[in-house]
Amino acid sequence: MQSRQERAGPVPASAIRALIADALAAAGLPRADAELCAELMTEADLTGFDAHGVFRLPQYVRRLRAGGFNPSPEIRVTRSAASTALVDGDNGMGHLVMKRAADTAVAIARETGVAWVGARRSNHAGPAGTYAAMPAAQDMVGLYAAVANANHMAVWGGAEPLLGTNPLAIGLPSGAGPVVLDMATTVVSYGTIKTHALNDRPLPEGWMVDTRTGAPITDAKRSDDGLLLPIGGYKGSGLAIMLGLIAGTLNGAAFGRDVVDFNADDASATNTGHFIVALDVARFLPLARFTAEVDRQLAELKGSQRLPGVDAIRLPGDRRRDCRAERWRDGVPLAPALVARLDRLAAELGIAPLAQRSDQIAR
Amino acid sequence: MQSRQERAGPVPASAIRALIADALAAAGLPRADAELCAELMTEADLTGFDAHGVFRLPQYVRRLRAGGFNPSPEIRVTRSAASTALVDGDNGMGHLVMKRAADTAVAIARETGVAWVGARRSNHAGPAGTYAAMPAAQDMVGLYAAVANANHMAVWGGAEPLLGTNPLAIGLPSGAGPVVLDMATTVVSYGTIKTHALNDRPLPEGWMVDTRTGAPITDAKRSDDGLLLPIGGYKGSGLAIMLGLIAGTLNGAAFGRDVVDFNADDASATNTGHFIVALDVARFLPLARFTAEVDRQLAELKGSQRLPGVDAIRLPGDRRRDCRAERWRDGVPLAPALVARLDRLAAELGIAPLAQRSDQIAR
Repeated sequence: MQSRQERAGPVPASAIRALIADALAAAGLPRADAELCAELMTEADLTGFDAHGVFRLPQYVRRLRAGGFNPSPEIRVTRSAASTALVDGDNGMGHLVMKRAADTAVAIARETGVAWVGARRSNHAGPAGTYAAMPAAQDMVGLYAAVANANHMAVWGGAEPLLGTNPLAIGLPSGAGPVVLDMATTVVSYGTIKTHALNDRPLPEGWMVDTRTGAPITDAKRSDDGLLLPIGGYKGSGLAIMLGLIAGTLNGAAFGRDVVDFNADDASATNTGHFIVALDVARFLPLARFTAEVDRQLAELKGSQRLPGVDAIRLPGDRRRDCRAERWRDGVPLAPALVARLDRLAAELGIAPLAQRSDQIAR
Repeated sequence: MQSRQERAGPVPASAIRALIADALAAAGLPRADAELCAELMTEADLTGFDAHGVFRLPQYVRRLRAGGFNPSPEIRVTRSAASTALVDGDNGMGHLVMKRAADTAVAIARETGVAWVGARRSNHAGPAGTYAAMPAAQDMVGLYAAVANANHMAVWGGAEPLLGTNPLAIGLPSGAGPVVLDMATTVVSYGTIKTHALNDRPLPEGWMVDTRTGAPITDAKRSDDGLLLPIGGYKGSGLAIMLGLIAGTLNGAAFGRDVVDFNADDASATNTGHFIVALDVARFLPLARFTAEVDRQLAELKGSQRLPGVDAIRLPGDRRRDCRAERWRDGVPLAPALVARLDRLAAELGIAPLAQRSDQIAR
């Protein structure tokens, strides 16, 4: 019998991907859609966005069973002008909707230089950077933003959770592949708070405040009484509002009080809004000149003098790239509790558990 | 004789505007260009961006005389694709270049739904919000970013000033006119530090760190030893980098070590880069539905429960709108030292000083 330690060791990405695909197919998704979601979710695990990968699988399956997702959506793309399109996700999985939106944006931008594609009636689609990286992999600048699927922040000065972490991601091509910035408009994500609670670690001041007193919350277990704080005070609050109005309201999608908390409600359609922009680099500068210049500038920053006590300067996308290389080689570390939950899910769905898939790969 | 107090009281916007126009024309700008710059600079004073209005006039005149600006640029717009354009500013005043870029973006977006217009060989153009507001006033979403004209920030962990406050502005139409977010990627602007130094006020921790020790700088007079801190730590640093690469590098404009400090150098061309995006709201939602929904959402946020001790919730654009109404009515408060400097400038250029213009208006 394997020890708990072994069972909870790093898992090959291919095993995670296969588990996700089989689980989503068993829960009703067409095979090709299940495979695409599995690919994008595993990408989140590989690039270190642990709260957006296989960790979400039990919740997604629960939503599919509860009727919260449409398993066979008719995703419609309406090209509203030469360079704009609106994607109606028909309440399908957000990954499917946003992959379609990103592909549409890249195709239009190839023609007209730039494309802005909005999406409505979509759902949680994983890390923002996944989608900003798509144009970047096609020699374009990518911008992506979304209305987050739960409100854990107040407007600056406010005490009600009316805003989400509404993330912004920017990707661009470089000599070493896409460089991607993926940032929430809050100081930390709600997932980070939960991880601290799980590990009984105190929260630094500046992460959360108490909704009743406005005082800092440092006990992570009290997070239900608190609100996440925005980056830069009123600036991050303002950014979350503007991105939310453009990703949500402009596309006819939910914002503010209309946001459905997808952690608390498995059945209601979330009407999630996102947007993605693709901009063709070659319309401004020859691609090779741009990537060479990006490489030069990033090397200058990375090699610049450091503050005392700083070992190395990390640039946008560094962690993503390093993490991906390491996890592709060594496997993705999964917490024992998560593996146990995935094992229960596999048993329920009558599909092979992770351990069996890892063994097959090892053989 | 007027007392110093009277001379330094609020000045009518029309007097400021006339002074700027006459000064720039006397320094060599064609009359129409001088008028346009004066209008946009006065808008900065009206909307509360005091470091970007008439405060900059002596510096601009100095640069014009030193050959740092081209007084009669041939601004060229190259439409590189159906929805993209690159504006070559020929080293003219940034206001002229970016007004042209914004007009171009709006015209293209009217045709194709969205436009992305980059600018190079431009200059300091005043507050970011000025340009994001232009599409917003034409029923469009506006995005604007620029490479700032001096580096006062390091990459996160770094000790060298290789990054600017690289601002981002987002504008959108509402029932009450454009709503504009204008944010630097630093916690505060360098201008705020200078104001604290002038008034002998200590700096809160979190604004600046010492380049040698990484320790907080709280004495504003020591700002030469310090670096501005980004919002959200590595997030703001990453945002400044990505915006800089897209507003600067992509347009063939300066970034990083190539940025010319326009406060220290009056003669060298800065090759400033910016970008502006215009997105036609009506391609996504009927305009009236969008503005009604924006109004409703903003009212919800504004009316939401407040944290203890918070008098009122301020949303993006509130300060701008309130300040404009107040200063339009009551005049723009100018510091006595600034008025004295402007009086000397007027005498040098042989044009009427502010006081005389205010008197004429009062009569």
